[in-house]
Amino acid sequence: MRILVTNDDGVTAPGLLALANALRALGDVSVLAPDHNWSAGGHVKTLDRPLRVKEVRLADGTPALTSDGAPSDCVSLALLGYIEKKIDLVVSGINFGANLGHDVTYSGTVTAAMEANIMGVPAVAFSLDVPDNFVGNPDFSAAAACARQVVEQALARGMPTGVLASVNVPYLPIEVIKGYRITRLGLRVYRNRLDRRVDPRGRPYFWIGGDAPTSIPEYGTDVGALAEGYVSITPLQLDLTAYPAMESLNRWEFEKKP
Amino acid sequence: MRILVTNDDGVTAPGLLALANALRALGDVSVLAPDHNWSAGGHVKTLDRPLRVKEVRLADGTPALTSDGAPSDCVSLALLGYIEKKIDLVVSGINFGANLGHDVTYSGTVTAAMEANIMGVPAVAFSLDVPDNFVGNPDFSAAAACARQVVEQALARGMPTGVLASVNVPYLPIEVIKGYRITRLGLRVYRNRLDRRVDPRGRPYFWIGGDAPTSIPEYGTDVGALAEGYVSITPLQLDLTAYPAMESLNRWEFEKKP
Repeated sequence: MRILVTNDDGVTAPGLLALANALRALGDVSVLAPDHNWSAGGHVKTLDRPLRVKEVRLADGTPALTSDGAPSDCVSLALLGYIEKKIDLVVSGINFGANLGHDVTYSGTVTAAMEANIMGVPAVAFSLDVPDNFVGNPDFSAAAACARQVVEQALARGMPTGVLASVNVPYLPIEVIKGYRITRLGLRVYRNRLDRRVDPRGRPYFWIGGDAPTSIPEYGTDVGALAEGYVSITPLQLDLTAYPAMESLNRWEFEKKP
Repeated sequence: MRILVTNDDGVTAPGLLALANALRALGDVSVLAPDHNWSAGGHVKTLDRPLRVKEVRLADGTPALTSDGAPSDCVSLALLGYIEKKIDLVVSGINFGANLGHDVTYSGTVTAAMEANIMGVPAVAFSLDVPDNFVGNPDFSAAAACARQVVEQALARGMPTGVLASVNVPYLPIEVIKGYRITRLGLRVYRNRLDRRVDPRGRPYFWIGGDAPTSIPEYGTDVGALAEGYVSITPLQLDLTAYPAMESLNRWEFEKKP
């Protein structure tokens, strides 16, 4: 089995190394990851400039590739042929910080998996629920062990067609994690505020600031599973159609057919 | 009614001017749009650098605001307080080129509307189905007239909670457009290829190239409506959970509970 590993925290991130190493026992692992952090960078297809690819080494000396594109660009590069071998599974992460609820639309970790899915390759994204204001390098070992188990299942049983998985792991020692739950997306409550400052030349600039988002730990959701100490596995699909809303929009009346 | 207009082609794009002017009869229109093109830039929340906002004028002399952030950042800036008045509706576009099927996950036009939706403000994205390889400035007048009718309905009847709309207009004279259809997302067939070139210093670089995507004009979809000469109105929601896949993932077996 050939596995492509990427992430959105950049090729030097310890979460990437932990994930790549955890998966080497399951198949032939290639790494192609961004050369810098793309957190909250969204689902990008870089069409207005060319991309570069460089050979580098991870912190343990293993070879990797890095590109100046977004996480989704790294997936495109690899699957469009930069990596000549056929890739069986794309795995993204382990992200520093959970990706819950609406986060999945912003998250480079998840949108890398979306890109693989659109290109017809099964994909799983992994994120570690590091506490707010955590400083330094978290311990990715429990998350890496969980990632290995999830990838083993994904390879053995196959992902349903058109579906990718977003997996969030609680920041707990492995022996305290209670198990795995298949979940739906929960609700994030974003608490962004605009932070206006003035530069040394007297001109205003604006940070999108505020507090870290909170979330509603409802049973059955990714948020709820994490809060109880479970790994959440959320299957995602890319049909965003709001089917129940179609009926109400069908009552819209247009002055005249144009 | 207070309407915020933004886009992803940038503040100087003629589609933005056409949209803003078409909506002035319906309410108090403010414009806050990116200072450059963000096509296929995804759903971005810029947290790693501050944003600047500048006062500019559109080509007809009307005042506007521009920022160095992404389309979704422009929405955040406005709704988090840069524009002090309460915004009733966010309208994005008119994009140069359709946003169909999976395009909605990449599209700055649609992700600007997603950002508004997440912040609890109704939103509609407009895109014009300009033919492949079209050069120059398309005629946005028919699309602007359709946008006005759609926004009138959105304001009068309200968008269903948690729903945004992505509207695609065929590139046809207004009298030829057949009417409006409420649709689901169709299927895009991307035909990207990796285009390897060598720079003047002998180093390789890579374009994500290939042909424009094609799409499957199935009845009931956005693609199908456009192909028949109708405006498509697709209601979107942000719960990407693949509910039907949960059962199959629930059969995954983990070696041991960690």
